[in-house]
Amino acid sequence: MADPSILETFPTPTDQPFVIEHVAEEFTSRCPKTGHPDFGVVTLRYQPRSAADGGTCVELKSLKLYYQDFREQGIYYEAVTNAICADLVAALNPAWLQIITSWKGRGGIRSDIRADYGDVPSHYRGR
Amino acid sequence: MADPSILETFPTPTDQPFVIEHVAEEFTSRCPKTGHPDFGVVTLRYQPRSAADGGTCVELKSLKLYYQDFREQGIYYEAVTNAICADLVAALNPAWLQIITSWKGRGGIRSDIRADYGDVPSHYRGR
Amino acid sequence: MADPSILETFPTPTDQPFVIEHVAEEFTSRCPKTGHPDFGVVTLRYQPRSAADGGTCVELKSLKLYYQDFREQGIYYEAVTNAICADLVAALNPAWLQIITSWKGRGGIRSDIRADYGDVPSHYRGR
Amino acid sequence: MADPSILETFPTPTDQPFVIEHVAEEFTSRCPKTGHPDFGVVTLRYQPRSAADGGTCVELKSLKLYYQDFREQGIYYEAVTNAICADLVAALNPAWLQIITSWKGRGGIRSDIRADYGDVPSHYRGR
Amino acid sequence: MADPSILETFPTPTDQPFVIEHVAEEFTSRCPKTGHPDFGVVTLRYQPRSAADGGTCVELKSLKLYYQDFREQGIYYEAVTNAICADLVAALNPAWLQIITSWKGRGGIRSDIRADYGDVPSHYRGR
Amino acid sequence: MADPSILETFPTPTDQPFVIEHVAEEFTSRCPKTGHPDFGVVTLRYQPRSAADGGTCVELKSLKLYYQDFREQGIYYEAVTNAICADLVAALNPAWLQIITSWKGRGGIRSDIRADYGDVPSHYRGR
Amino acid sequence: MADPSILETFPTPTDQPFVIEHVAEEFTSRCPKTGHPDFGVVTLRYQPRSAADGGTCVELKSLKLYYQDFREQGIYYEAVTNAICADLVAALNPAWLQIITSWKGRGGIRSDIRADYGDVPSHYRGR
Amino acid sequence: MADPSILETFPTPTDQPFVIEHVAEEFTSRCPKTGHPDFGVVTLRYQPRSAADGGTCVELKSLKLYYQDFREQGIYYEAVTNAICADLVAALNPAWLQIITSWKGRGGIRSDIRADYGDVPSHYRGR
Amino acid sequence: MADPSILETFPTPTDQPFVIEHVAEEFTSRCPKTGHPDFGVVTLRYQPRSAADGGTCVELKSLKLYYQDFREQGIYYEAVTNAICADLVAALNPAWLQIITSWKGRGGIRSDIRADYGDVPSHYRGR
Amino acid sequence: MADPSILETFPTPTDQPFVIEHVAEEFTSRCPKTGHPDFGVVTLRYQPRSAADGGTCVELKSLKLYYQDFREQGIYYEAVTNAICADLVAALNPAWLQIITSWKGRGGIRSDIRADYGDVPSHYRGR
Repeated sequence: MADPSILETFPTPTDQPFVIEHVAEEFTSRCPKTGHPDFGVVTLRYQPRSAADGGTCVELKSLKLYYQDFREQGIYYEAVTNAICADLVAALNPAWLQIITSWKGRGGIRSDIRADYGDVPSHYRGR
Repeated sequence: MADPSILETFPTPTDQPFVIEHVAEEFTSRCPKTGHPDFGVVTLRYQPRSAADGGTCVELKSLKLYYQDFREQGIYYEAVTNAICADLVAALNPAWLQIITSWKGRGGIRSDIRADYGDVPSHYRGR
Repeated sequence: MADPSILETFPTPTDQPFVIEHVAEEFTSRCPKTGHPDFGVVTLRYQPRSAADGGTCVELKSLKLYYQDFREQGIYYEAVTNAICADLVAALNPAWLQIITSWKGRGGIRSDIRADYGDVPSHYRGR
Repeated sequence: MADPSILETFPTPTDQPFVIEHVAEEFTSRCPKTGHPDFGVVTLRYQPRSAADGGTCVELKSLKLYYQDFREQGIYYEAVTNAICADLVAALNPAWLQIITSWKGRGGIRSDIRADYGDVPSHYRGR
Repeated sequence: MADPSILETFPTPTDQPFVIEHVAEEFTSRCPKTGHPDFGVVTLRYQPRSAADGGTCVELKSLKLYYQDFREQGIYYEAVTNAICADLVAALNPAWLQIITSWKGRGGIRSDIRADYGDVPSHYRGR
Repeated sequence: MADPSILETFPTPTDQPFVIEHVAEEFTSRCPKTGHPDFGVVTLRYQPRSAADGGTCVELKSLKLYYQDFREQGIYYEAVTNAICADLVAALNPAWLQIITSWKGRGGIRSDIRADYGDVPSHYRGR
Repeated sequence: MADPSILETFPTPTDQPFVIEHVAEEFTSRCPKTGHPDFGVVTLRYQPRSAADGGTCVELKSLKLYYQDFREQGIYYEAVTNAICADLVAALNPAWLQIITSWKGRGGIRSDIRADYGDVPSHYRGR
Repeated sequence: MADPSILETFPTPTDQPFVIEHVAEEFTSRCPKTGHPDFGVVTLRYQPRSAADGGTCVELKSLKLYYQDFREQGIYYEAVTNAICADLVAALNPAWLQIITSWKGRGGIRSDIRADYGDVPSHYRGR
Repeated sequence: MADPSILETFPTPTDQPFVIEHVAEEFTSRCPKTGHPDFGVVTLRYQPRSAADGGTCVELKSLKLYYQDFREQGIYYEAVTNAICADLVAALNPAWLQIITSWKGRGGIRSDIRADYGDVPSHYRGR
Repeated sequence: MADPSILETFPTPTDQPFVIEHVAEEFTSRCPKTGHPDFGVVTLRYQPRSAADGGTCVELKSLKLYYQDFREQGIYYEAVTNAICADLVAALNPAWLQIITSWKGRGGIRSDIRADYGDVPSHYRGR
């Protein structure tokens, strides 16, 4: 598994609730069965806890390095999505968090996997 | 009819609810009236039951082979959509499941057929 | 007016509720004032009544012929939309039905007309 | 101001509620400060009152002429949007009505102004 | 920080509620860590208080100059979004207001930050 | 066949060579075999002879009426393209002229037919 | 191999040179190694010999049936392209002819194969 | 006619040949027959004479004002294109110059008019 | 460097000249300076020597494996392009061959590198 | 002016001729008249001299820093294009080189400026 200790955070800069979205278009891991590379896009959306509540945001460069850590790992679409979700929830303790992975496809089938943590607002679900 | 016993499954990797979407862009069957080939896109969306609940996910290669089994079959748009929905519900026993088929058209008319099983969240309906 | 007796139906193939959408991209009628041709796209969406409830679906080729019957008719955008809606409701007795016509425009203005019958789900309204 | 008496109407052709949308892609007025031309797209959406209720629809050519009447007028984005909305509400007495103006921009900023009259359905808001 | 006193306002021209959206496609600031330029798009949406309520709208040219004031400032994505939101709320005292910033990306990751003030209608959230 | 005497012309306004392109997006005729409507886009490009040379240009409204004259005619793609080309060459006596018809397709095949008269410059060929 | 005797022709309707293009978007054959279906788009472009020269054009429905004949055949991209080219050249004896096949891809690689017969004009090459 | 004396120029900044392209997306004039507004896009491309040769370039704001001068003028597509070409050639005495006007269309037909002055390189023709 | 001995070939299936294009959308290597991953698209175009001339084509799966061999290699854009070009020329001895690599970019700059071997036809250059 | 001594180079890695293209999508300078920021895209294309000929390529990060050096400079579109061209020619002594700048526009007019050095192949001109 990728090493979640790579993830760095900084304090939420405000008490106003707001939403952060980071779309990583260059994600790659390996198929655990065949060893062939998989290529996907990873979307992270979350609402940090407020400054008053000790909330934190993920530092962008550390997020990039964390994602790169999956490069040589053999892992299924479903598992990598849930793993990233769990690691980021542990690192950020957010109000809510959402991970969507989009895979270019194998055998003529392309796939999206969506994992939600906490009370994701309905306008972000299914997108 | 296609043979649903081709479908293989694997255990849901987590107890967190999440959503899986597989879009097969190269589906073909035959018109039961004229025998001419039909070409469509088949979208499968579902939420597997949780690991604790004995949930299962569909294995991607078996899904591809199951779809290929319709290649020489004569079957209407409406019937193939409901048949795929019923077979996958039987194989996966999911929390909910949705099948959308999109057909390139005959006689200047293109068609979408949408079948839902269980309590499909509203943000997935009509898309 | 076009002849609704052209419309043929077949029994709904299942008791599961599902939704059918047919988009006719090559519709033409005439402006009743000037006689000039109008060109539009006609979207039909409906949920047939279930098989148990004696529901029926529209046969695709007959729908095409019914639409072609408007070719030489002089009729306003608003009227043709409501006429198609009424004819299809009479022919299909559906759970709900929706007609949207989109017109390329006259005088720099393009137009959409939307007519709903019955309880069209909110996720189909306004699209 | 443009002359709303240009607007002609015709009786709603049905008692069924339906929605009309006219998108005028070639609207121009002038900036009241600089006198420079502004170019925008004006979207009108409304539900006419029913035939039984004495409802009326706007005649398309008169709408075009009414819009052309703004060509040499100096008027702010916000004001022209509300003026069109008020004139059309007065002319049509609709169930509800919505005006959206989209402006190509000045100084690297493009703008949309949205005005609603009556109970505009939620699926039309914010689009 | 940018100087919010640059922002000029004018009185809301009507008592009818309406919504204003200004999309600035040419926003640039600097990364506070590396000093490298960041490029983004800033979307402002708000409903001004009514004329009767003493509401005001932001003057477009002053908004442009206010945005240009960030050009040489070192500031994080999250902070600039919340700063713009706070300054505009202070200047306009709107019914509600929303700021969305979209950044072209660093290290293969592009980002959106969304901040809401007051009761932003659900149809504007998550867009 | 459509009546080429509908076509009106006006004198070329200059001695400088220039090129005129009219794209008619709403062309319809009928298949001579099945009688079903065909829908296409007709592109006309030509260089009129110069004013000094007694050149003429086609009047736009008469071109539209000439095209509408094919509406109920049964004619093959190849034949209608060559017929339009011949009629316009006869009416305009141009330096060169090009007709391209694009058809939405039958049986999953869409078609373009291209006919050239005179010395069409190479940069217009094959487009 | 597909049966080229399915191909029907009709006499070229004119002595003027012109170009015909048919794009078949729903072509499928099988990989000769794995037996898995391949999906492609087949573009045919040709200039028929003139009427005076006894030229012929391919009849569209027979072309469709000829293409369908590859449905269950195991054949490589390169071979199917050259086979279609040779069969159509034999059937039509054209001035020139071009076949381009575009394949959706296997293993993350999509492919185009282009075969020319005779003196294909330069503006059609490489497109 | 528009007043070409509005056009201002500045000296070509270099002796190296280079090409300038200005695309005005908000051009409007009036149809000389009906008086209705026309809306188009005007593309100007030219190579200024070199600095050593006393070459000049058009100043952008004066070009904008010159174009605005056509706003209330009744003038045909073909004539306005040739008029702009002639005025700019007179003002700039360029190595070569090209004007392309694109019109949104009347009666379902959209039009492009292209006028060239001097030896326009082949790679700019027909675009 | 990647191992070119992975590349397998098969005999050209015809004596007719034709062109093969393979676009690999999921190529990744590493920056030799920073070690960070680079992501690109690799386009291979070539004309194989004829069957009579002992020509060969590259087998698609072996091409994929050859490309994957660069995954952990540190190599510049320019070098990887020329390396792939040289390896494929050595393996195929083609009539001509072209490699284009497109890179998503670093620091806001995206790059294309194009290498040609032999007499690449002009219509393929610069695309 | 920007400081060309920022530009670093590295030796051309091969004797085979090849072409390098770098597209900088985040370029900004200032209008020398008004001081307002301009935003553009800068495309650099060149063929380096060969290794044997002592050719050099521009290092990507130094190119980025060189472009950033224009950020606070007041300079016309035409001048900045020719300045970048001259600086890169001096730094690289290439076989040929091309600079294209694309500007989002002022007053409804967007602009492209193209400067060529040496014998730029025709397939790159005008793009």
